[in-house]
Amino acid sequence: MEEMLVYERDEWFSRAKQAMDNKTKPLGSLGFLEEIACRLVVIQRSLKPSVEKVLVVVFAGDHGIAEEGVSLYPQEVTYQMVLNFLRGGAAVNVLARQVGAELLVADLGVKGVFSPHPALLSLKVREATRNALHENALTRTEVEEAIEEGKEVALRYGKEKDLLIAGEMGIGNTSSASLVLSALFDIPLDEMVGKGTGMEGERLEHKRKVLKEVFRRRKWERNDPLSLLEAFGGLEIAGMVGFYVGAASLGKAFVVDGFISTAAFAIASAMFPPVKEYAFLGHLSEEKGHRLVVEKLGMKPILSLGMRLGEGTGAVLSVPILRAAASLLREMASFEQAGVSKSREEGKG
Amino acid sequence: MEEMLVYERDEWFSRAKQAMDNKTKPLGSLGFLEEIACRLVVIQRSLKPSVEKVLVVVFAGDHGIAEEGVSLYPQEVTYQMVLNFLRGGAAVNVLARQVGAELLVADLGVKGVFSPHPALLSLKVREATRNALHENALTRTEVEEAIEEGKEVALRYGKEKDLLIAGEMGIGNTSSASLVLSALFDIPLDEMVGKGTGMEGERLEHKRKVLKEVFRRRKWERNDPLSLLEAFGGLEIAGMVGFYVGAASLGKAFVVDGFISTAAFAIASAMFPPVKEYAFLGHLSEEKGHRLVVEKLGMKPILSLGMRLGEGTGAVLSVPILRAAASLLREMASFEQAGVSKSREEGKG
Repeated sequence: MEEMLVYERDEWFSRAKQAMDNKTKPLGSLGFLEEIACRLVVIQRSLKPSVEKVLVVVFAGDHGIAEEGVSLYPQEVTYQMVLNFLRGGAAVNVLARQVGAELLVADLGVKGVFSPHPALLSLKVREATRNALHENALTRTEVEEAIEEGKEVALRYGKEKDLLIAGEMGIGNTSSASLVLSALFDIPLDEMVGKGTGMEGERLEHKRKVLKEVFRRRKWERNDPLSLLEAFGGLEIAGMVGFYVGAASLGKAFVVDGFISTAAFAIASAMFPPVKEYAFLGHLSEEKGHRLVVEKLGMKPILSLGMRLGEGTGAVLSVPILRAAASLLREMASFEQAGVSKSREEGKG
Repeated sequence: MEEMLVYERDEWFSRAKQAMDNKTKPLGSLGFLEEIACRLVVIQRSLKPSVEKVLVVVFAGDHGIAEEGVSLYPQEVTYQMVLNFLRGGAAVNVLARQVGAELLVADLGVKGVFSPHPALLSLKVREATRNALHENALTRTEVEEAIEEGKEVALRYGKEKDLLIAGEMGIGNTSSASLVLSALFDIPLDEMVGKGTGMEGERLEHKRKVLKEVFRRRKWERNDPLSLLEAFGGLEIAGMVGFYVGAASLGKAFVVDGFISTAAFAIASAMFPPVKEYAFLGHLSEEKGHRLVVEKLGMKPILSLGMRLGEGTGAVLSVPILRAAASLLREMASFEQAGVSKSREEGKG
C-alpha cells in the first residue's frame, strides 16, 4: 500500500477547510460534517468529493464454536440468511437499495452448498472454522487465504466505486470478535463479551464461561495479528481484513460497521497502519465492548442508534450522511457567490 | 386538533411491534429504528408507513434585539440568506435536494422587500420585531397573526406530504429562543445562552449581559406561552409554532430541528400537548442549552453531529434515517417468508 505523503495530505486538508470556511454558514457550524467532507477531499484528492457509487459486500462464514451454545440462533441460520441476502429480504438489502448501493455476498466459509447466483461470490476456504474450544479455529494458511480473497474482492469489484462497505453474517461471530479484540488490546474478556443476538441471564453467563475457557486454552502473539485469527477465527472476519486492506490500496474510502467489522478493522490497521486514513466508522453498536474499542482506535462514529444487527447495516445507514457532507462542500454557495456579509465588521463596511 | 384515542394508538403500536419482531433479525437489534418505525405506523395509521414526500419550510424574520450586538453577523444577513435560499445555495437547499424535498421560504418579518419568487411565501406580519431591551418584541395580535400564518402554511402545502419540516433564519434568533426557553422551563438564563453563530469571550459575555437585562425588564406569564413570544419574539418562531400545530392537526409527522425550532416546539406543545405525538427530533444541536431542553421535553435526537446551523439542516439530514426505518418495516422479509429459524429452540425442532 502506498502511504500518502504527509505534506500532500495536509495540503488537501487545508484547501478543503478553506473552501468549507467560505461557505455561507457560521464558521464550523456544520460540525462533524465538515470533518467528514475534508477527509473525503484528502482521500479522493479532489475538492469535489463524491460518494455516489457504493459497494457493499457481506462476508459470511460459520464458526465451530457455535456448537457450544454461544448464540441464541442455530448455526444453519448463517446459510439461511445468505439465501435471504440473495433474495433481497434482509435489513442490509433494504438499506442498500435505499442508497442505490451494489450488494454482493462473499461466502468465505458457510456450512452447506449454494446454487450459483450473480450476487454470490463463492470463495469458501473451508466449511466453518474449527471449534476453538478444542483446537485453533484456523491454520495460518487458511487465514492468509481468506485475507487474500477479501483483498481480491475489493480490488476486483471496488475499482469503479467511491465508497466500500463490508458487512458480515456468521452465527457465533461476536464470540470470535470478542476474543480477538480482548487479545489484541489486552482488555479483560468480561468487558468484551456482550449479548450478541440477544443473550441474557444464564445463557450469557454460559457464553462468558465458554469464551474464558477458549481464551485460556489457545495460544497467540499480540504482535502477530494473524495468530489471533488462527486461534479464534473467523473466515468472514479474515475476509474483511483483506477487504479493508484492498480498499486502502485502491485509495478508496471505506466505512466500518459495528463490533465484528471493527475487530476486522483493528487487525487490518495493526498490520498496515495507513488503512486508518481511509476509514470512517458508520455507527456505534449497542454490543457491549464496541465503545471501548472505538476509543482505543480513536474513531468517531457517525451514527449512534442503538443498533446491534451487523450485516453492514450501520455502515450503509451512514451513507446519506457521508453524501451530505460531500454535497455540501460541492454545492453550497460561498459568501462571495451569494453576496452574504461574512461578519459584523465586514457588514458595517 | 383531534387527539388520537389512546386505545387506538396502543393498538397500532402493538401491531407495528409484532410485525417488526417477525422480521429476519435478532429481537430489538435495529434499536431506535424500530421505535421510529412503530411511531410512524401510529401516526399514519398504516403498517406500510411512507416518508417519501417531504416539505421543508424555512421561516424567516428579523429581530430588533440584533441592534444590541448579540450576533456575529449584521442584521442584513437575514435578507441576504433568504435570497441565498431562493437561489438554492444554502446548506438546507443542498440537503433538501439530496432527499428530494420541496423547499419553501416563508417571510414572516424580514427587513426589506423581496421580488416575487415561486418558492417565497410573503407573509410579513411586520418588518422585524421591536427591540426587546426597550419594549415587548411583539403585540399579542402580531403573535397570533404569525401563528395563524404558520398554521395556514402547513395546512395548504403539507396536505399531500408524508413529513413536514420547519427551519428558520433570523439574525438574533438564538437570543429570542434562549429567553423563551429560560422563561418557559424556569431554567437559569446562563444555561440557555450559547455562542449562536460563533460568539466567544467578551462578545459572548456582552450577549449574556444584554439578555439578562431583557429578561429583567420584560413581563410574561409562564402559563401563557403567547406572552413569552410577545416579550421576546420572534416572528419566525411564532410561525413555526403555528406550523407544528398545523402539521399535527393534519395528522402528519414532523421533524423538529435544533435549538430555535425546539423553542417553537416547546411553545406549541405547551399550548396543545397532543402535538408531541407527531414530533421527531432530527438532531441534538451543539448550541448550549439544547440538550437540557430536549431532556425536559423527553425527546430523543436521531442524529448528534455537533451541528449548530439551523435552517432546518439537522432535521432534513435525519430524513434518510426516518425513511430507512419505514422501508425496513415495509420491505424486510419475515422469518416465515425467508425460511429462517427463529431461535435455537425452533432450529432444533
